[in-house]
Amino acid sequence: MLEQLKETVFKANLALPKYHLVTFTWGNVSGIDREKGLVVIKPSGVEYFEMRSRDMVVVDLDGNVVEGDLKPSSDTATHLALYKAFPEIGGIVHTHSTCATSWAQAGKPIPAFGTTQADYFYGEIPCTRKMTEEEITGEYELETGNVIVETFKTKNINPVQIPGVLVHSHAPFAWGKDPQDAVHNAVVLEEVAVMGWKTLSINPDAKPMDQALLDRHFLRKHGANAYYGQK
Amino acid sequence: MLEQLKETVFKANLALPKYHLVTFTWGNVSGIDREKGLVVIKPSGVEYFEMRSRDMVVVDLDGNVVEGDLKPSSDTATHLALYKAFPEIGGIVHTHSTCATSWAQAGKPIPAFGTTQADYFYGEIPCTRKMTEEEITGEYELETGNVIVETFKTKNINPVQIPGVLVHSHAPFAWGKDPQDAVHNAVVLEEVAVMGWKTLSINPDAKPMDQALLDRHFLRKHGANAYYGQK
Amino acid sequence: MLEQLKETVFKANLALPKYHLVTFTWGNVSGIDREKGLVVIKPSGVEYFEMRSRDMVVVDLDGNVVEGDLKPSSDTATHLALYKAFPEIGGIVHTHSTCATSWAQAGKPIPAFGTTQADYFYGEIPCTRKMTEEEITGEYELETGNVIVETFKTKNINPVQIPGVLVHSHAPFAWGKDPQDAVHNAVVLEEVAVMGWKTLSINPDAKPMDQALLDRHFLRKHGANAYYGQK
Amino acid sequence: MLEQLKETVFKANLALPKYHLVTFTWGNVSGIDREKGLVVIKPSGVEYFEMRSRDMVVVDLDGNVVEGDLKPSSDTATHLALYKAFPEIGGIVHTHSTCATSWAQAGKPIPAFGTTQADYFYGEIPCTRKMTEEEITGEYELETGNVIVETFKTKNINPVQIPGVLVHSHAPFAWGKDPQDAVHNAVVLEEVAVMGWKTLSINPDAKPMDQALLDRHFLRKHGANAYYGQK
Repeated sequence: MLEQLKETVFKANLALPKYHLVTFTWGNVSGIDREKGLVVIKPSGVEYFEMRSRDMVVVDLDGNVVEGDLKPSSDTATHLALYKAFPEIGGIVHTHSTCATSWAQAGKPIPAFGTTQADYFYGEIPCTRKMTEEEITGEYELETGNVIVETFKTKNINPVQIPGVLVHSHAPFAWGKDPQDAVHNAVVLEEVAVMGWKTLSINPDAKPMDQALLDRHFLRKHGANAYYGQK
Repeated sequence: MLEQLKETVFKANLALPKYHLVTFTWGNVSGIDREKGLVVIKPSGVEYFEMRSRDMVVVDLDGNVVEGDLKPSSDTATHLALYKAFPEIGGIVHTHSTCATSWAQAGKPIPAFGTTQADYFYGEIPCTRKMTEEEITGEYELETGNVIVETFKTKNINPVQIPGVLVHSHAPFAWGKDPQDAVHNAVVLEEVAVMGWKTLSINPDAKPMDQALLDRHFLRKHGANAYYGQK
Repeated sequence: MLEQLKETVFKANLALPKYHLVTFTWGNVSGIDREKGLVVIKPSGVEYFEMRSRDMVVVDLDGNVVEGDLKPSSDTATHLALYKAFPEIGGIVHTHSTCATSWAQAGKPIPAFGTTQADYFYGEIPCTRKMTEEEITGEYELETGNVIVETFKTKNINPVQIPGVLVHSHAPFAWGKDPQDAVHNAVVLEEVAVMGWKTLSINPDAKPMDQALLDRHFLRKHGANAYYGQK
Repeated sequence: MLEQLKETVFKANLALPKYHLVTFTWGNVSGIDREKGLVVIKPSGVEYFEMRSRDMVVVDLDGNVVEGDLKPSSDTATHLALYKAFPEIGGIVHTHSTCATSWAQAGKPIPAFGTTQADYFYGEIPCTRKMTEEEITGEYELETGNVIVETFKTKNINPVQIPGVLVHSHAPFAWGKDPQDAVHNAVVLEEVAVMGWKTLSINPDAKPMDQALLDRHFLRKHGANAYYGQK
């Protein structure tokens, strides 16, 4: 069942330690089959190097395990909330990558300081509000997804144009058109988090880039008039 | 004698360079057999890559060498003081890992800024007071253990819930239910030390996470209602 | 056609990931044959580890593809502008190396704080002004080259003595007498960017080195009286 | 001639890239045979991985090449000045290791913030004054050695107890009883430079450690009453 998606999700999970985005088991990747309405996700708390493709867990959009012997990631409800709210996305990554997590702990969005960010994120990478005690003590993982969705709705952000977020006092989520693309965006998110930190350290008064430059770089790589790469 | 514990302690010591927690010989791991009242510890000043399982030294809780041709770690008396005061712990790690040591040198506890820390430490990671001249010129290594124990008693901290500490002007100690678990916590301590440093650099006014979120994450992984992993 | 230069440019491109100057495909190297007036450059958006020597693209100084099945780097027009304005240079590198990019985002030149920089750069490494909306929405990559050239002309800087620049809100370019030399200077640029950042962090009032020391180190390695190395 | 010392100096030079202390050829190690009054040193500007043991150059204390086809390191006169002034030392290392160089650029000594430093350096690691224009335009490398010696004499520092220094606006030198020991101290110097930088970043008001703790740690490893290791 969904053998190809399982293989893709498996390989995308293994890319997390390869790109130094995770320590121990602190991260997970999922992918969705939109036609079947099924999500494939990493099992909870399993070491990356012991994991096999067939250990990936299949859940439906209500979180019921449809296939798999292991428990799905404890963050599954967050992934499902994002898949439901953002119909264009096909893969989601959650990590505690060091610098993006530091911005989340600082409770600050990552400003669009330069073209590295503009090539992938059409503006600053938002940070959610703090979650309420009620949300935290309730269905916490679902509410984590809800506060992300609320952030994008309230700020009127298109999740295809800003494929990532910082959850306050927690860590980043990133997404993309498929699991591999989501990992790609998670790598970029960590890299611009490092650059943003150093930028502020060099110049505490650093300002975001001009809108025209942001437009140019994002649209050079995305949308109808893209001209980067071999397309 | 205690062959299995020696093998465990040996492998846990080798994990220190693997996780980039030590330079040269700057670190040591021990483990305890509570029934026999014996502790196995790294020999003093021996290179990790020349060391063999049978070089591990067995000492009793008074510090007498019971087995082994080499001198035990110069920090043995600190380990023994912790084993006596904290009966629930089974393994101890001492390193000079870079960022945790920097917090110790700064004389500051690591605030609980986010869920990475909350998954393993139920609050801030304390820093001891400075040691007195009398303690330093007396039985220094024993007194190092004593000032750690005093810190946990005075602040009413449960060492099972906060499995690590910073010794002022010195470096971190971490512990766990066994030597491997202690190394795991030492890795986390260094990682949250890095994140805490960057968090403050990004936002000097960053505040600790909310108590409800700290509760949720710590209790998600620890205690009767834990639901993380495959348990 | 230009087989040797293609091989040189190919190997110089592979040196970028080797020296940790690039993430994904974020960088490119070119080389010029001054006699023929032809430039060899990396194809656009191709992974370093899938690339072959014969994938290098040959363009003339007007940007026309003379040989090659793939599209040349999207930054080709920038390279060409630099080759035209700086007749002494034989190779150009563009990367988003982490720390140099952070200085570019900070909009600050890298001061000549010490001899590491002085051995390769005869003074501070300049940062261009911001580009205008007209430049950005016009022939952007060409204008990027033009603003670099303007920076060197306005400040009366010799591009042979300062073989690199930061483009405001973007990233560094470096060059040299050939593609390999350009990569060498790109590595130095990133290293002095790291050192400059840490220098300011340790001492916010740090001042540039004395002119006499700058002279001594630069001229020890460059020009008629050089005495470093086996020459 | 001096085959064993050449082999030792050769291997000590190769340890510099192994410990990430050098980029390209930016570093050199020498060793001295005190009986013969001869110094073995790395040749100038040669890549570490192309170098052979027999490429090491033998010079006398006046800097005359006694054996070897290659030119000795351009820093040879600095090494010789130190060997003459500090008769107890047997090996010298010069690098541009990233963080120690940043302290040198900042023009600041590295305070003795903690026991990592105290285990090898009996106090703060000094930074020389700036060199004068006369010194720089004169016999520069010799004068570099002289300003180091002056620093130790003026501050009444014992070079055996503080086996390293920062040269203002330049980079560190370290030494030891033999070339391997000098490399060891150069590694420690870089590590405490990293820790000192982060310590100040976490707590700008951090103070040096207490004298009693400095005494205890330094004397635990050095001198008649040392008890660390298997001695």
